[in-house]
Amino acid sequence: MRNMDKKIFEDIKKIEKRLGSLSSTQKILLATDGSVTTILDVLTGHVTIRTLLQEFRAADADVADLLNLDKGTTINYRVVVIEGKKPLIYATSIIPLDRLDNDFKEDLIRADIPIGRILKKHNIESRREIKSVAVEEANQHLQEIFDTDSLMLTRTYNIIHKDQILIWLKETFPYNMFRE
Amino acid sequence: MRNMDKKIFEDIKKIEKRLGSLSSTQKILLATDGSVTTILDVLTGHVTIRTLLQEFRAADADVADLLNLDKGTTINYRVVVIEGKKPLIYATSIIPLDRLDNDFKEDLIRADIPIGRILKKHNIESRREIKSVAVEEANQHLQEIFDTDSLMLTRTYNIIHKDQILIWLKETFPYNMFRE
Repeated sequence: MRNMDKKIFEDIKKIEKRLGSLSSTQKILLATDGSVTTILDVLTGHVTIRTLLQEFRAADADVADLLNLDKGTTINYRVVVIEGKKPLIYATSIIPLDRLDNDFKEDLIRADIPIGRILKKHNIESRREIKSVAVEEANQHLQEIFDTDSLMLTRTYNIIHKDQILIWLKETFPYNMFRE
Repeated sequence: MRNMDKKIFEDIKKIEKRLGSLSSTQKILLATDGSVTTILDVLTGHVTIRTLLQEFRAADADVADLLNLDKGTTINYRVVVIEGKKPLIYATSIIPLDRLDNDFKEDLIRADIPIGRILKKHNIESRREIKSVAVEEANQHLQEIFDTDSLMLTRTYNIIHKDQILIWLKETFPYNMFRE
């Protein structure tokens, strides 16, 4: 097993020691290298996204470091809530615009389509590297979105395409969700 | 949503109508486009594979059709059980040898490494197309492996790399497993 995978599995065990056991679904949502949209679709019916923020930014030092970019490169910064009948996952994504094909770029900026579905539509071959999993306190913003003061489970990962980080993602959901 | 995905979700609902509700884990195992090895690793601890059969064959008409090959092309036919403390998933795979890079080929033929882990080791960018999900009666072979006469849940899918089917897979597990 690769070291990074091993670290993720160990970190999930540490979270369980701290919070109590996670459900199978929670563990899968934290560890999977597959489309989270697909998982939410099959669990809850067809999910949609609500875009809270989408803007172009210049990569600051932290972002440049995360995505292996030059500082100042234009990135698409997007914050969405993936939801069925209720909010399911809060997701932040960073995409360097110059790594996008044109029609892919259009879909990404134009419409409220989950990234997993866009990748499928364009038959994008990729791989996902899970970088971290963690527990976080909910800030007020997250408390309002999920209507809970539960602790939050969160992970970060990269979607890699043509050997470059195409998308950096952070996904967050409350510990009291996906419990069965 | 793409039509094929939609069909898979509808077929899973049909299975639930027939058998009763599937667990979240079962639905995810049938629908995910991520590594099943990763999911089993996070659910049960580090899984391994036991190879029941591995041989080179010439593609017959059915296989040629499934993988979009010329009849007679050499394929690697492999049947394995993915297991933790007990058998978890029975998997049959078909790989056309001429679509493999050399070091990837070596890993695939040499060692008892799950395909998901081999793809990761070699940083292979790919996408998975789920082709079908179904319920099947367990034949005697499967009954013995899983020590149950439960009905079986099964799916087929392609792992696509460089626009070609690199691996065709069929995975099977008993309806009475992954129930929580």
